[in-house]
Amino acid sequence: MISHAPPGYVCPICALVAGGTTDVSGQQDIVWQSERATAFICARWWPNNHGHVLVVPNAHHENIYDLPAEYGHAVHDGVRTIARAIRDTYGCEGISTRQHNEPAGYQDTWHYHVHVFPRYRGDDLYGSNPYPAFVSAERRRPYADKLRTHLRHPGE
Amino acid sequence: MISHAPPGYVCPICALVAGGTTDVSGQQDIVWQSERATAFICARWWPNNHGHVLVVPNAHHENIYDLPAEYGHAVHDGVRTIARAIRDTYGCEGISTRQHNEPAGYQDTWHYHVHVFPRYRGDDLYGSNPYPAFVSAERRRPYADKLRTHLRHPGE
Repeated sequence: MISHAPPGYVCPICALVAGGTTDVSGQQDIVWQSERATAFICARWWPNNHGHVLVVPNAHHENIYDLPAEYGHAVHDGVRTIARAIRDTYGCEGISTRQHNEPAGYQDTWHYHVHVFPRYRGDDLYGSNPYPAFVSAERRRPYADKLRTHLRHPGE
Repeated sequence: MISHAPPGYVCPICALVAGGTTDVSGQQDIVWQSERATAFICARWWPNNHGHVLVVPNAHHENIYDLPAEYGHAVHDGVRTIARAIRDTYGCEGISTRQHNEPAGYQDTWHYHVHVFPRYRGDDLYGSNPYPAFVSAERRRPYADKLRTHLRHPGE
């Protein structure tokens, strides 16, 4: 098994899924949850793609290599649900997803997660770097509210 | 339904899945196939991530918004299988995946596909641009051979 988590790693994503908070994220960031997956507003923002979402398995698995199929499928279902909801509510014109494994692959949190980004023409997602600091809960809230409201009334 | 395929679009990915060839890809590029998904060596290469793979559903669906769950799950299973096989055979130190929807999201082929990239420290995947021309079948072949051989004998 390939792992880069340090000994005694306290997983922030597991804390969030279990109903707790982390240094940067809280329950108010969670926009969708199923038996096996959870979606929440990422606190790390790219300059032209505000309010992007992370979708994670509810059980701790570090990377795609060892992710059990039922969790992979649940995460995919969440990504699709979130992609549609972002497309319907953010005013964007596309969606891109990405997923990183190991430090050479740019992974830096040791729990499998898929980034779901709103895309806009000319946003230069790949050429731009995220803001150096996490964004505040206040800035994240309107995005979480939008998605939660939409997903509670998906037919409207 | 959101679609950007032009009227009368002849889908190159459907041609490949059906056993045919396209202007740039052929059956020799296919490295893995299941009932609902197919994986093949992409002919578009990034300078430091040679031989990356595309995983597609065997039925025509343009984007993630309308992809039926059973095809999304089959593609995920393919991505995981390919991620492990690339990690085991290319000498890379990580794997990243990405998936694009609509032109604003950088999609330019109108059949859902997930990119599976080998990653190396300092490869600058996001800052680098793909080669302007498709790479030749001769350059793709050793990567296809490596994955096919490995997937045929996954325990070795």
